[in-house]
Amino acid sequence: MTFATAGIACPTMHSSSQDRITLAHGEGGRQSRRLIAEVILPALNPADQHLTEDAACLPQPTGPIAFTTDSFVVSPIFFPAGDIGSLSVFGTTNDLAVAGAVPLWMSLALVLEEGLPMSILSRVLASVGRAAREVGVRVVTGDTKVVPKGMADGLYINTAAVGLIRPPVPAGPTALAVGDELILSGPIARHGVAVLAAREQLGILPEPTSDCGSLLPGVEALRRRSIPVRAIRDATRGGVSAVLHEWARDCRLSLSINELSIPVADETRGVCELLGLDPLHVANEGTMVIAVAPGAGEAAVAALQELPQHRQAALCGVVQVRQLASVVVQRGLGRAIPLDEPQGAPLPRIC
Amino acid sequence: MTFATAGIACPTMHSSSQDRITLAHGEGGRQSRRLIAEVILPALNPADQHLTEDAACLPQPTGPIAFTTDSFVVSPIFFPAGDIGSLSVFGTTNDLAVAGAVPLWMSLALVLEEGLPMSILSRVLASVGRAAREVGVRVVTGDTKVVPKGMADGLYINTAAVGLIRPPVPAGPTALAVGDELILSGPIARHGVAVLAAREQLGILPEPTSDCGSLLPGVEALRRRSIPVRAIRDATRGGVSAVLHEWARDCRLSLSINELSIPVADETRGVCELLGLDPLHVANEGTMVIAVAPGAGEAAVAALQELPQHRQAALCGVVQVRQLASVVVQRGLGRAIPLDEPQGAPLPRIC
Repeated sequence: MTFATAGIACPTMHSSSQDRITLAHGEGGRQSRRLIAEVILPALNPADQHLTEDAACLPQPTGPIAFTTDSFVVSPIFFPAGDIGSLSVFGTTNDLAVAGAVPLWMSLALVLEEGLPMSILSRVLASVGRAAREVGVRVVTGDTKVVPKGMADGLYINTAAVGLIRPPVPAGPTALAVGDELILSGPIARHGVAVLAAREQLGILPEPTSDCGSLLPGVEALRRRSIPVRAIRDATRGGVSAVLHEWARDCRLSLSINELSIPVADETRGVCELLGLDPLHVANEGTMVIAVAPGAGEAAVAALQELPQHRQAALCGVVQVRQLASVVVQRGLGRAIPLDEPQGAPLPRIC
Repeated sequence: MTFATAGIACPTMHSSSQDRITLAHGEGGRQSRRLIAEVILPALNPADQHLTEDAACLPQPTGPIAFTTDSFVVSPIFFPAGDIGSLSVFGTTNDLAVAGAVPLWMSLALVLEEGLPMSILSRVLASVGRAAREVGVRVVTGDTKVVPKGMADGLYINTAAVGLIRPPVPAGPTALAVGDELILSGPIARHGVAVLAAREQLGILPEPTSDCGSLLPGVEALRRRSIPVRAIRDATRGGVSAVLHEWARDCRLSLSINELSIPVADETRGVCELLGLDPLHVANEGTMVIAVAPGAGEAAVAALQELPQHRQAALCGVVQVRQLASVVVQRGLGRAIPLDEPQGAPLPRIC
């Protein structure tokens, strides 16, 4: 009998304790153990059954490593083209990918709210398993806590991951130089808009979908073609604007982008106009900003466009000598306008 | 100006946004960046200022590694002799220590509730920094999310850590054999009782204090003396009972402990009797169960007792041929009684 088939209740057990998370599932006793053995482990890689140990013992990495973590508190838990489970895998392993590392091992820590339906947990865990297999990362250690009703919003997930750094690693934003070209790997603002539309039930058709996905293939494509990459960053919270502002600070130059070159899906633009949001400030979860050496932009775009998820990759900007504004946007056919740094909370809880 | 001195408000800013966490602190824009730069980083190791990168790039470990994670949702956040900050460091690095690893690098992920006073966050972060320096682990990567008021209980913390495995590593509970001796490294049930007494404001005097602390020195002391250790486990959620039951399942033998030999502080025993709790089921956060080869128990206890935190280490039990009950307790002078496996939720949210 497994909790994964929670719809088929065993008549000898209280369905309340079988179908929903209770505080006892977080107390380290038999209930915790059964949750791990019957719900959590089967959803992940069956080879990873040593997850019940307190720490995973792993072989020596064959080179330098990258290490990163992210917590996920997205609302709603499920959104078009993703959910908190896939997001927790892609979000963390994308941080490794843009650092030049191949994901090896991941941890999965759940904070569950008392009363969470077991069916929801199972769906989320299945999504974690699928995404982890797609990325090729192994979930090797985990943790489960349960908080009383009202003290979390369904569930929160934390993932941390270790990856193997594969040279050459981009020098990073401090190495940006005048004339470097700026690329976006695909249409921007899809994730934030999809989550917002789902949360607010805006009823937009076609339904905006998230770009939630792995950046590893795109990074690998650039590496295979030996593109001279200076810096790569996934444009998550704060969107493309946050990345450009951080890079401008790091290199002490100005970054200029051309609005007409920036890919934005029609349904994304529609929602942004409706709500007064600038797509440049809205979060992505499978789209990156790439800076390459002068003249390398077109080859980089061609390499990316061979992948279905990056078919709309585009050359969008350039690094310039320092001006008054550190980030400027050529808006339409007019003059360059400074781009504000994201400050407030236009879109809370999108990851 | 730093947020760390939040009591001295800068008159040109709204004190509301300076003194308390707002949703904007979690959105990846300027407010997030300032929180990281002005509150989080200064509390941790000043050498770790590259925390603003998405992933930490680290040198190749010199051998096999251990990797572990834990989330912390303890209530209340502060309790006698510890808080959620020190707990999040010791809890995770203790998992490495009992796996035979020396902690190297740690991640720190915060889920903050909107409205959390900045002074509370600063106190917790200072505690994280102190504990990390004590253990010798470097906080190299992190994440901050903010959830709306009512969707977390102040703050939750996740830590994950990577450690270097140092041979010899104990073979683990499957290797337990008849005649092996069982040791407790100190008085049990202190953490669970201290948190419970603080949460319920029981007003017990002397105030029960947590054992929240590092197990690394104890594990190192056993290694230095070349004690033939079979298995070590920190007795956290589910207490000593959960460890013994897990070990009994793994080795298919019975574990017998003698109640009179088990160290329990008077104030702990008092609270347990008041509330009908068995100290064997109550969580510890700086106390471990150790199994050693036959005859090695006294040397192990002597090695541990040289450390102030393990002065009351005691030889408490033995591994026996399999009986009907997998774990038995010699209660007082009477006969051996089976020890229940912890199941329910006697003490929710103690870690």
